[in-house]
Amino acid sequence: MKNLLTDKILGATGADALVVTQPDYRFYLTGFESSFGVVIADSDGARFLTDSRYLEAAKSKVNGGIEVSEYPRGESLASLLKGYKSLGVSLSKTFASEYLSLKEAGFEIVDSTPAFEKSMAVKSKDELQKIQAACVAADKSFTSLLSQIKEGMTENDVAALLEYLMRQNGASGTSFSTICAFGANASVPHHETDETKLKFGDIVLIDFGCKVGGYCSDCTRTFLFGDDGKHEQFKQAYEHVLKAHMLVKEQFAAGMTGRAGDAIARDYLAKFGLDKYFTHSLGHGIGINIHEAPNLSPKSESVFEDGMVFSDEPGVYFEGNFGIRIEDTVTLEGGRVKSLTNSDKTLTIL
Amino acid sequence: MKNLLTDKILGATGADALVVTQPDYRFYLTGFESSFGVVIADSDGARFLTDSRYLEAAKSKVNGGIEVSEYPRGESLASLLKGYKSLGVSLSKTFASEYLSLKEAGFEIVDSTPAFEKSMAVKSKDELQKIQAACVAADKSFTSLLSQIKEGMTENDVAALLEYLMRQNGASGTSFSTICAFGANASVPHHETDETKLKFGDIVLIDFGCKVGGYCSDCTRTFLFGDDGKHEQFKQAYEHVLKAHMLVKEQFAAGMTGRAGDAIARDYLAKFGLDKYFTHSLGHGIGINIHEAPNLSPKSESVFEDGMVFSDEPGVYFEGNFGIRIEDTVTLEGGRVKSLTNSDKTLTIL
Repeated sequence: MKNLLTDKILGATGADALVVTQPDYRFYLTGFESSFGVVIADSDGARFLTDSRYLEAAKSKVNGGIEVSEYPRGESLASLLKGYKSLGVSLSKTFASEYLSLKEAGFEIVDSTPAFEKSMAVKSKDELQKIQAACVAADKSFTSLLSQIKEGMTENDVAALLEYLMRQNGASGTSFSTICAFGANASVPHHETDETKLKFGDIVLIDFGCKVGGYCSDCTRTFLFGDDGKHEQFKQAYEHVLKAHMLVKEQFAAGMTGRAGDAIARDYLAKFGLDKYFTHSLGHGIGINIHEAPNLSPKSESVFEDGMVFSDEPGVYFEGNFGIRIEDTVTLEGGRVKSLTNSDKTLTIL
Repeated sequence: MKNLLTDKILGATGADALVVTQPDYRFYLTGFESSFGVVIADSDGARFLTDSRYLEAAKSKVNGGIEVSEYPRGESLASLLKGYKSLGVSLSKTFASEYLSLKEAGFEIVDSTPAFEKSMAVKSKDELQKIQAACVAADKSFTSLLSQIKEGMTENDVAALLEYLMRQNGASGTSFSTICAFGANASVPHHETDETKLKFGDIVLIDFGCKVGGYCSDCTRTFLFGDDGKHEQFKQAYEHVLKAHMLVKEQFAAGMTGRAGDAIARDYLAKFGLDKYFTHSLGHGIGINIHEAPNLSPKSESVFEDGMVFSDEPGVYFEGNFGIRIEDTVTLEGGRVKSLTNSDKTLTIL
């Protein structure tokens, strides 16, 4: 049987056969989630071998052109690959023990990572629909969360409620552990959600996302839980971060590098002396994985094109005081940025 | 600075230095969750290097005897390790690309996996308390779920509600995606929770667990949503699976192998011709990871001892018809099995 995707990646890798044991790459090729299995593809076609737990489901769900059969119990991977000289294997995603056992069996190993990253970065129509669905579920859930947030709730309470709402809105789960930070906790970019209680006048930062059909969404909003009149500096910085975020949406375009995209936000923030508080990069690719290629960072030479999906997330962090991050999942369509998460970004005061 | 745990694992590995880049091993040593960082330990002491996002939090939270500092930006791992001849690295958990870059830099690599697995299998008092807390949260949530299950709810609805309850009961999240299977779906050991609606007379199988303090619980219950009088075969099989589960708790003991434990359940089920429907192994270790060493399977020669935590989960699956699995998280204490999840296992008819 033939499968266009495995053919393309096999061709780009240039080995006799492609050997795929990573859960994310395996899902990318088969469209089927499993904790065990291997895809083996050569110029004659592609096979997916898995164990008895998944066999029945795999037969009905695996993408067309990929033959499904049971992994022969106790058989080593190397013995299944007899006859090939060179194997396409992802060196960045294959554990050393597996790599060494293939090397010891005499195979020449070619790194398949670049071919996978290139292919996965540009989403198909079907992949875009799934990401869009994950973005819609995140938007709906966040909007509904805002009407349910009350004084005295803990960060964990709010995160739990948002995750529940995303589940109810069609997500299979979160794309990462929800970050919910009240007050000064928002000044830690990766704050670990805790039992801090919400009180009047708190800044609230929530970074959240969910999965639909195996694909992720990613979104961050920062808002005020009541205005105690002490937040002038915050309000000013908020407008600058929002403007930086919007400038990227206006100015970034197909054909530009990730570095150029990052600079749009960074250079704008620099005008107000805020760049030194923007301590992370502007964005990352989003797909099956919450972080994947390509990146928008000061060093990224990746050239962006239509169909890529990534985050636009400038942020500023004043240690021990407050933090602001505004993030949407976006894509390039017709050369321009199109936002896939769309809940309100004008400064909300609950 | 000195840390007993890194000293012990370094000693067991026998290399000049231990290099730990895996999130689970890193958390095991530091007690601090992060998506980036490396622990380097030698006979002089241990260091944890991480990036600016985590630095502040790491300094206050990392276990005693481990020095925290910022990972020098842009520096390769190999260059940080200059002066060592041999490095202890987990070959089963280190990606080939990282392994190759260390090899190319001239280091001799010693596999640290056995030392980590051995150490992590036996839980400290503190680790046991966290697992126990995760088990209590799972128990409470399941009991509360039972009173809220209604006809017409989908598998996703029930899973989402249970996950929300676990969050409310103190969990930071799930230890894996909740498996919820109604009717014939329960005959697939790893059913992907879907939109199937609950109806009167359905068999319900729920496999769930949560995390507290970074440690997992794991539990499965099977019950009837109303009795339509058509479930005689199910009821009989249920009693046999429950008896197999309980026999393991009565007979398994410190000093026995995983194989011997598995055989207690398998041999009992064989008396009723049910062993051929018991298509997986009896159990697996539980800790920071939901699946870790040691296993209870027909091939496991691991010798069990006090402080180990694992699942006791016999199950039978009649394809296209129904399935039963009864699972508790258990530990060995004073040589005997002690159950850590304890929600009711007598056949429940809601």
